[in-house]
Amino acid sequence: MCRWLAYSGSAIPLEELLYKPDHSLIDQSLHAQLAGQTTNGDGFGVGWYGTGADTPAIFRSLVPAWNDRNLREIASYVESPLFLAHVRASTGAAVQQTNCHPFRYGRWLWVHNGLVRDFLRVKRELALAVDESLYACIEGSTDSELLFYLALTLGLEDDPPSAVERMVSLVEDTGHRHAIEAPLQMTIATSDGESVWAFRYSSEERSQSLYYSSDVRTLRRLYPERALLHEVSDETRMIVSEPLVDLAGAWKEVPESSYCLVREGVDELHKFRSR
Amino acid sequence: MCRWLAYSGSAIPLEELLYKPDHSLIDQSLHAQLAGQTTNGDGFGVGWYGTGADTPAIFRSLVPAWNDRNLREIASYVESPLFLAHVRASTGAAVQQTNCHPFRYGRWLWVHNGLVRDFLRVKRELALAVDESLYACIEGSTDSELLFYLALTLGLEDDPPSAVERMVSLVEDTGHRHAIEAPLQMTIATSDGESVWAFRYSSEERSQSLYYSSDVRTLRRLYPERALLHEVSDETRMIVSEPLVDLAGAWKEVPESSYCLVREGVDELHKFRSR
Amino acid sequence: MCRWLAYSGSAIPLEELLYKPDHSLIDQSLHAQLAGQTTNGDGFGVGWYGTGADTPAIFRSLVPAWNDRNLREIASYVESPLFLAHVRASTGAAVQQTNCHPFRYGRWLWVHNGLVRDFLRVKRELALAVDESLYACIEGSTDSELLFYLALTLGLEDDPPSAVERMVSLVEDTGHRHAIEAPLQMTIATSDGESVWAFRYSSEERSQSLYYSSDVRTLRRLYPERALLHEVSDETRMIVSEPLVDLAGAWKEVPESSYCLVREGVDELHKFRSR
Amino acid sequence: MCRWLAYSGSAIPLEELLYKPDHSLIDQSLHAQLAGQTTNGDGFGVGWYGTGADTPAIFRSLVPAWNDRNLREIASYVESPLFLAHVRASTGAAVQQTNCHPFRYGRWLWVHNGLVRDFLRVKRELALAVDESLYACIEGSTDSELLFYLALTLGLEDDPPSAVERMVSLVEDTGHRHAIEAPLQMTIATSDGESVWAFRYSSEERSQSLYYSSDVRTLRRLYPERALLHEVSDETRMIVSEPLVDLAGAWKEVPESSYCLVREGVDELHKFRSR
Repeated sequence: MCRWLAYSGSAIPLEELLYKPDHSLIDQSLHAQLAGQTTNGDGFGVGWYGTGADTPAIFRSLVPAWNDRNLREIASYVESPLFLAHVRASTGAAVQQTNCHPFRYGRWLWVHNGLVRDFLRVKRELALAVDESLYACIEGSTDSELLFYLALTLGLEDDPPSAVERMVSLVEDTGHRHAIEAPLQMTIATSDGESVWAFRYSSEERSQSLYYSSDVRTLRRLYPERALLHEVSDETRMIVSEPLVDLAGAWKEVPESSYCLVREGVDELHKFRSR
Repeated sequence: MCRWLAYSGSAIPLEELLYKPDHSLIDQSLHAQLAGQTTNGDGFGVGWYGTGADTPAIFRSLVPAWNDRNLREIASYVESPLFLAHVRASTGAAVQQTNCHPFRYGRWLWVHNGLVRDFLRVKRELALAVDESLYACIEGSTDSELLFYLALTLGLEDDPPSAVERMVSLVEDTGHRHAIEAPLQMTIATSDGESVWAFRYSSEERSQSLYYSSDVRTLRRLYPERALLHEVSDETRMIVSEPLVDLAGAWKEVPESSYCLVREGVDELHKFRSR
Repeated sequence: MCRWLAYSGSAIPLEELLYKPDHSLIDQSLHAQLAGQTTNGDGFGVGWYGTGADTPAIFRSLVPAWNDRNLREIASYVESPLFLAHVRASTGAAVQQTNCHPFRYGRWLWVHNGLVRDFLRVKRELALAVDESLYACIEGSTDSELLFYLALTLGLEDDPPSAVERMVSLVEDTGHRHAIEAPLQMTIATSDGESVWAFRYSSEERSQSLYYSSDVRTLRRLYPERALLHEVSDETRMIVSEPLVDLAGAWKEVPESSYCLVREGVDELHKFRSR
Repeated sequence: MCRWLAYSGSAIPLEELLYKPDHSLIDQSLHAQLAGQTTNGDGFGVGWYGTGADTPAIFRSLVPAWNDRNLREIASYVESPLFLAHVRASTGAAVQQTNCHPFRYGRWLWVHNGLVRDFLRVKRELALAVDESLYACIEGSTDSELLFYLALTLGLEDDPPSAVERMVSLVEDTGHRHAIEAPLQMTIATSDGESVWAFRYSSEERSQSLYYSSDVRTLRRLYPERALLHEVSDETRMIVSEPLVDLAGAWKEVPESSYCLVREGVDELHKFRSR
């Protein structure tokens, strides 16, 4: 199982979420608690948007995140209003930078936790479904990157929820044709630099965990002593595969087969279905 | 430009060819002489056959070969009667282990120097031509690995020269359909653990250099003071992209559009053509 | 906490102990059970003796061991009658090859689990105690490597138990002078290619775990269905920081403040004291 | 031989100097021209000051710089008014991050090209001369880092030229006592975030090359078509081991046994001597 987080709100140093919380993403990668039996030592990545830049920057590394000195420098130096981070536990594909999330295409970033079941049996057929002009952009060998390029093929840049639904449908149809019972397990976050969409879905309807942070105003009332909560804007939101801190009332579960949309002034939760 | 060597003969420690000659493969990677303007620092690999093992072992690394301590240990420890080594200068694809040569499939190894021109324009079409059962074995993103899986698709395991000719033909036809004038530049070595086939070919008939070593008995007469020449069998042969030592008469050029076959008691040179 | 194993007996492929047991060293590095809260993802190393070679070979790597493809190749290719392997969890020093165990000097290998408390306060004083001719051989920045060079300075090559006792005494005296209460925690294995010495000691007399394997003849009677037990000689022994398999009667604890000596035909357990 | 550059002036993206010039530092690392026979593939580092941060950030990597994707991202993202970059060609010490320049202590950065001759013979004695409180900060195994800690010991933070002169004197005296004829070869840059000091010196008075850029106003008159020259302030200066672009009049040699001091409004050249 991989782990990821998405942050949208006031610009903060990356280290505020990657290192400082009790159960930060880096700490999770060392000590699995809620979800997991395995260690996330198979690659780390973070992608962040600047203020005004067209393309997000990404840093991806194979050194276990907890001892990656370059990551620590970057996380302390970079401030960003919107970033996605990911720690990987390989489900088979090689440990290499091009298999680390987030994946990037133009302004878009993509992180995934989960898997395409029996991926090697359906990989070729799914790869053929990628638009010809996009095919050559695929650099790695993971199911996660292929899901991204399928979603791009199916209109991610125009209507993300609809494109992801069609991507899921295509993967499930392909899997079923190969007699794979529950072809897909996923939580996914994607962003264009302004909005974040986060999806929770699995063919078997037992999706891996996903949480979003409560309204910052509520959190300030509950935890007046937490300085960071007073520094960030009311609009600030986090979406995480596993809670970063143990604060009662701080995290709400994204329900099964749902997605959230987070953007300045917008905070929505919708049903998600394969179509 | 990449560089490679193939060795077949009496079992010797890998370091005898990788490190010890005046102009060893490792030294070539630091100081290009004959061929090149660039440094081969984008990955190293060596694959070797044991005595009796079904599958060759491979060691591939991203650390520049001249300072890779694991490679030095391995090269000193491992003795092998047949091995292929390669230093890479990337023509674009990511620097990662899965892009390092040799590539391996079952008993087969494969190294390549050269390129498929405008690879990203023809990559998808070539990938579709790979046999369905082989497609999922592709792990990296290079043209070289794809050429290997095309050759396997076209019968490499049964008749290597014919399979490589058909592979070349397929790549050239595909390139021409995309208006690419000279689609392919290659020197390639491949082995099943008993024979080595080495090909020199390019669509424009200006192929990169390839040499094979002279008969060991001749070399012994010419250079009676060279100890290694007296230790190896009469059957010992090397094929190299660039001479390893400056000994007059030691190296013969593989002619344009040709291939050699080397095996115990066999030493042949044939014309090679796209078909 | 680090983990390590030492093997002495019939030559076996490294993978028999590194990968195959239920709770192999590689598996331990992913899923701590007995001892640990943390993951051993900060470097892996194995050193092995050949048959006749003067100097052992070593392979050390920073990629988490469970996904290191070069390690898997080496572990399958190399057969050895005596090897030491180690997975590292850094207690502060940088994650780099020169900090990975085993350390090597001439014929000698050394692995360590534990730490010198408040190492940075005593590092300079300990480094000055290293023999002048050995000082320049120190390549990394760990306490473990420094303990090795202190033991070499104090006669490791002539009388290992006595040299290690004097090394411990020197470290404890130095620590006490700096008001460090319990200066040293250690399990250590060292070998010259013929014997293995394994030490369990800590200043506070609560040393980390250490086990040695029971007599192979006993194990064969207990577990007649285990093939490997019938292939190895009666003299075969393992010493491990944590049991590799859950077999009742297979492992005996090395007592607090003790050391074992294992060599063909010899199998001794002695008291160990700081002097 | 290593290569380095120091930049001081208007904040610019790192890539403007690392990648864009005809003969950028990254390009130099691939294709040695002026100085060198070898390739600089043994590690890259850049340290930069932000606007207001107390401590500079550093990024150091072992991947050959020309294909390091993280470096490319950082170089495009980070803008800085003062940075030091370095490509390493090892003279023996291990290729590892802690041996990559720049070295950092508090606000101070340090890069070095050159070597302490017969370093292993004098290493211990030089290490003992490092202040006790600084000794434990040494993380790597290079001569370059040790020179830095010697200079810090001898007052770098108070009077850099004088501290470097005393450091040189100490190294030469130590070398001479060991019968080493010309103990030191160096070009060095160091900075506290406001000033850059660059030294050119060698015991044999044949120091490796060092250049500083001409006055920007002069350059604008000579090359009115170069956009970057119009964007940066009049105070902008570069100091480089090898010219970045072939522009007549753009570079002046730092004379043998000299140092420059560059700071906003200050631009001085002085004699340098061992004392």
